[in-house]
Amino acid sequence: MPISQQTQLISHNIVLNRGNVEAKRAEIKAYFNQTFDVYEALFDTLANDEAYYLRPCSLRHPLIFYFGHTATFFTNKLVLAKLLPERIDPKIESMCAVGVDEMSWDDLNDAHYEWPSVQDVRNYRDQVRAAVNDLIDNTEFTMPIDWQSPLWPVMMGIEHERIHLETSSVLIRQLPIESVVSSELFPICPDQDSPAPENDLLSVSAGDVVINNQDPAEYYGWDNEYGQHQAFVQEFKASKYLVSNQEFLAFIDADGYLNDKYWDEEGNRWRDYSPVKHPTFWLQKDGEWYLRCMTEEIAMPSSWPAEVNFHEASAFCRWKAEQTGKPIRLPSEDEWLRLRDFSNAMEYQDNANWNLQKHASSTPVDQCAAGNFYDVLGNVWQWTQTPIYPFDGFKVHPLYDDFTTPTYDNQHNIFKGGSWISTGNEINGHSRYAFRRHFFQHAGFRYIESDASVQTEFSTYETDSSVAQYCEFHFGDEYFNVPNFAKTYANYAIDAIKADADFNQRNDLRVLEVGCSVGRASFELAKYFNEVTGLDFSARFIRIANQLQTTGSILYTIPQEGEIMDFKEQTLRDLDLEKTASKCEFLQQDASNMKPIFTGYDMIVAVNLLDRLYEPKKFLQDVAHRLNNGGLLMVSSPYSWDETFTQKENWLGGYKDSQSGENVTTLETLQNLLADDFEMIREAEDIPFVIRETRRKFQHTLSQVTLWKKR
Amino acid sequence: MPISQQTQLISHNIVLNRGNVEAKRAEIKAYFNQTFDVYEALFDTLANDEAYYLRPCSLRHPLIFYFGHTATFFTNKLVLAKLLPERIDPKIESMCAVGVDEMSWDDLNDAHYEWPSVQDVRNYRDQVRAAVNDLIDNTEFTMPIDWQSPLWPVMMGIEHERIHLETSSVLIRQLPIESVVSSELFPICPDQDSPAPENDLLSVSAGDVVINNQDPAEYYGWDNEYGQHQAFVQEFKASKYLVSNQEFLAFIDADGYLNDKYWDEEGNRWRDYSPVKHPTFWLQKDGEWYLRCMTEEIAMPSSWPAEVNFHEASAFCRWKAEQTGKPIRLPSEDEWLRLRDFSNAMEYQDNANWNLQKHASSTPVDQCAAGNFYDVLGNVWQWTQTPIYPFDGFKVHPLYDDFTTPTYDNQHNIFKGGSWISTGNEINGHSRYAFRRHFFQHAGFRYIESDASVQTEFSTYETDSSVAQYCEFHFGDEYFNVPNFAKTYANYAIDAIKADADFNQRNDLRVLEVGCSVGRASFELAKYFNEVTGLDFSARFIRIANQLQTTGSILYTIPQEGEIMDFKEQTLRDLDLEKTASKCEFLQQDASNMKPIFTGYDMIVAVNLLDRLYEPKKFLQDVAHRLNNGGLLMVSSPYSWDETFTQKENWLGGYKDSQSGENVTTLETLQNLLADDFEMIREAEDIPFVIRETRRKFQHTLSQVTLWKKR
Repeated sequence: MPISQQTQLISHNIVLNRGNVEAKRAEIKAYFNQTFDVYEALFDTLANDEAYYLRPCSLRHPLIFYFGHTATFFTNKLVLAKLLPERIDPKIESMCAVGVDEMSWDDLNDAHYEWPSVQDVRNYRDQVRAAVNDLIDNTEFTMPIDWQSPLWPVMMGIEHERIHLETSSVLIRQLPIESVVSSELFPICPDQDSPAPENDLLSVSAGDVVINNQDPAEYYGWDNEYGQHQAFVQEFKASKYLVSNQEFLAFIDADGYLNDKYWDEEGNRWRDYSPVKHPTFWLQKDGEWYLRCMTEEIAMPSSWPAEVNFHEASAFCRWKAEQTGKPIRLPSEDEWLRLRDFSNAMEYQDNANWNLQKHASSTPVDQCAAGNFYDVLGNVWQWTQTPIYPFDGFKVHPLYDDFTTPTYDNQHNIFKGGSWISTGNEINGHSRYAFRRHFFQHAGFRYIESDASVQTEFSTYETDSSVAQYCEFHFGDEYFNVPNFAKTYANYAIDAIKADADFNQRNDLRVLEVGCSVGRASFELAKYFNEVTGLDFSARFIRIANQLQTTGSILYTIPQEGEIMDFKEQTLRDLDLEKTASKCEFLQQDASNMKPIFTGYDMIVAVNLLDRLYEPKKFLQDVAHRLNNGGLLMVSSPYSWDETFTQKENWLGGYKDSQSGENVTTLETLQNLLADDFEMIREAEDIPFVIRETRRKFQHTLSQVTLWKKR
Repeated sequence: MPISQQTQLISHNIVLNRGNVEAKRAEIKAYFNQTFDVYEALFDTLANDEAYYLRPCSLRHPLIFYFGHTATFFTNKLVLAKLLPERIDPKIESMCAVGVDEMSWDDLNDAHYEWPSVQDVRNYRDQVRAAVNDLIDNTEFTMPIDWQSPLWPVMMGIEHERIHLETSSVLIRQLPIESVVSSELFPICPDQDSPAPENDLLSVSAGDVVINNQDPAEYYGWDNEYGQHQAFVQEFKASKYLVSNQEFLAFIDADGYLNDKYWDEEGNRWRDYSPVKHPTFWLQKDGEWYLRCMTEEIAMPSSWPAEVNFHEASAFCRWKAEQTGKPIRLPSEDEWLRLRDFSNAMEYQDNANWNLQKHASSTPVDQCAAGNFYDVLGNVWQWTQTPIYPFDGFKVHPLYDDFTTPTYDNQHNIFKGGSWISTGNEINGHSRYAFRRHFFQHAGFRYIESDASVQTEFSTYETDSSVAQYCEFHFGDEYFNVPNFAKTYANYAIDAIKADADFNQRNDLRVLEVGCSVGRASFELAKYFNEVTGLDFSARFIRIANQLQTTGSILYTIPQEGEIMDFKEQTLRDLDLEKTASKCEFLQQDASNMKPIFTGYDMIVAVNLLDRLYEPKKFLQDVAHRLNNGGLLMVSSPYSWDETFTQKENWLGGYKDSQSGENVTTLETLQNLLADDFEMIREAEDIPFVIRETRRKFQHTLSQVTLWKKR
């Protein structure tokens, strides 16, 4: 299906929340076929079939994989969504599904791959195209097209292919020049000689960045684009132009690649590993610099943007800061968004070098203005300092739970703006693509001057399975209609102190929670108490409580079935705990050997603690002097004595006494141990709790609570 | 508190279910004080304080322990029952609580015991006596006095002391003769010379033995006496007299102790261990036999009953059978009870040599008639072949959960009838005392002639914790209002086959349950299906199912808190499964590798099985040909995949497919694997189940059930 004119490459994002069904059906069908066309046209830049089987990079599959991959993706997602009854070509699909990213040496063993022929993949693509066309023609759907719509997986397949249109163009750019041919559909920019402009720093006024993107939205989006985000960005200066090859050359000439002080630790590791001490698409021949474009090698176009990875961009900024004495650095995602707002860049997008609407290459950095700035959108992507992180309210789409979640690891940095070949979702104004910091794309950078600090560590998914289990237990869903346990017992404690004549007139009360785990009850206690100290033996648990207090949110994954995970986010705000959280302090501490400093409390709460201590008696014998006169002690436990945690000789109950031969229950021992210092002031009662292990498997337990008043 | 007249030794059982409170209070008070008096009077037969510290037997504590023990028992139980606020003398109580039975060498290390002085124990006994008197005077109670009554632990202490009155008299009988003195309160029978009568076998007609003893009962009882029991006893002959010393001498003279053929395996082990080849209380001096009584040694009284342990009694019977050519043996408990009924022995009890009402020793075997028989009650206890076992409906009393339960081990045989020093509960007509078969008491035997077989193996408490957990899961209580799971899914299966037009007119249906565990669902299926095959990989589980089918009941213990156990009994009758149980067959079998014979079923049920198989796929691929045409397959699982049971490569779901990269759920794999042979005929649904781990800790799980019809 040849494309004869360049204009046929240009596409437009489909509006999914407005319009009528049949018009939308036709629009999506055209968009789908155009996407398939453009993708196939891109592969026509390979010089011959052999080129499909060359590795563009030692850690990547050959292009034949990517040629088959985008069609396979359609099949896989449509089968998963039960829109296709069965696979189309299981053999090709088994070869072309997995392995998009860098792989380990093991996985790249050629003996493991019997790649299909190019013609076989073309035939397969035709079959998939026919199936998807048939599906678009015949699937019933309603407007808007949202996450639940049967057309969502179709849009997902299309936008997935558009991502690969760009990343494949990068891989093609990495093939030997003999293996590629230029194409009139992908014409290089002819303006290769103009001098680079002198860069400048222009002010960007302070302002708020506000994102609130909900399903159903106007355009197709990946999971990471949804949710709420708000930030105030202080005034800064941003470079008027992207950093040009000429501007970057000064860094090279200053031996910037040879000086470790311009690189951070990870950057230096990459620098040590990489044999090439210049941008990856640069070549030096006879002392002259050349630039490898997608299908051409040209004399270095000084005025085009420098294309580098994050490490190179950051090193340049450190050098530039040293040179200028100014706080030069890469922008954060928020700062970049503020620049886009400030420059009204979206208004200038028809003039941007993106969406294949100008050239199949970069253009000089001074051609596409947006206000006083240039190339805010398009030309090449612009690295930011911000690792990708989820917005509040983030959820995975069930058909693609690993699109973003594996990249919430503080190792994938966001770049913004888009390149000449960015299309579809990539340029809809919401997208947030992130790559490993050493990756190359059609990506460069713009620097800014600002003394504001930038957040570069975000909470990642808690994958420690027991910690994640407790995150869900404290902050997650309720199961079997059993109310949240931590909230319930915190309220029991609050009720108790409110009912106590010694304390109910006071608003300066201090409470100590021993065994606070990930902190939910302590946060609840802070709604009433003036000061809450939460202690836990486990630093892993305390870390979560501290993270919640500091950042307001946690992320974790819990098993659904086997290794299939649910991805969860919890925020203090959603639980109405945000305003009082600052009254809490969380510390790691051994309950059987607590420091003297933890004293002077009006109430002490110890829930699900005793039967996990190695010396529970010591805790109980030691607890009275930590309370103020008349203070309350709340103890709760399921009495699940287990030698894993407590040697049998230290159990408080659940055995026959060696002297009397009589059964000793924990409640009796509690009464004996606490009798001298305390009066038991309520009947013991059981509070149920449920801990999820998988979607179908739970622990369901009763914790017996007793309340004591210091004499 | 001296007792001047023998009549003061005689007591009468207290009727607990009739009478008015104040009269009963006085009666119990008198009974208590009389018990304390008699017990102390018994110890007056010790010649001096030193005698209290001698070991009557190398494996037993000295008498000083027992002197303090019965008072300590009062304290312990009354503290446990919260009737006493605190211990009376913790030091004495710590020495005198534990160690009633034979002990290991380690536990008898003298260095571990600093026994109190006799006077200290006397003082302690006075303190306890005062406390109990005070308690009887002041405790509010109502009639009847039942298990919940505050006077029950008082009665428990009294009857406990009465047991020790007898067992201490045996220990005193084992002390050196120099260490004991005779007492006018405990006069030996003067008739020591009369000749023994010739024994005879008299007929006892067939009849039913019926026991139905419920709380509140007429008299105080130990846990093992309560419940229901019914048996038909066929006609037999019983010896008119207990076996006399003279009759037993013939066995000794025939070298019965030297010939292993008269002894069973355990008996021979005891015989090898024991240096003495005659009854333990016999002595031989200058070729003449003497008998050691409690405080005297006398020339062998030929006409008194021979006192032996179970092994000696059994050996005598084997020898006697050989001599006579008749099926001579010891009676079972039921046969003994039938003899008591037949002889109307309870009508003659005022004439029996028991309750200290005649002598403080045996009497000739031909003095106390009951109908045509003698000594059916009293004189010495009579060994039976029956190991103690619980009646249906057995429950432990919470204040004394180890009175009987440790003896439900087929190693403690019941003896019946009572001895001259048996009082109180021992002679109330309900009691069932059992001792290790090598133990000596004031016990002998009566033999019977019968060709009926005797049950000597009873089900014991299942203590394998996982098996016991499943016994409770299948047959025990419901928790959190979740209906019994095995019954629920069996009913799902029955509903399914009833709704199927191919099967709903038939009454010859065969069902196979794979993974039947301890069998509850198979028993439930037998209510509708004509033939039920239950298979499980675990022989431990299948054993329980078979035991239920054979005996109708199971016993097991499950943890309450720590090592404190609940004792449970379940019967098929209570679950209305008794009548159809014979339609079941239970076999051990590997579901991943089933024998070809298991075929031709109309329905196959596999619940909570798949995720515990090492090759679940093999089971599913193999299952269709085992079903008749149109047959139903019911599969249910929580999909709790775990590498402990199933290697990851064999999981049916819960992973990302290595080829497509997509999540694979177990349900999808089931659909794929079964698609060729089956049609899925119902929507998948979750059935909840709860497994108790302790009184407060449970697993709460959802099992997803799917129903398939063979094409």
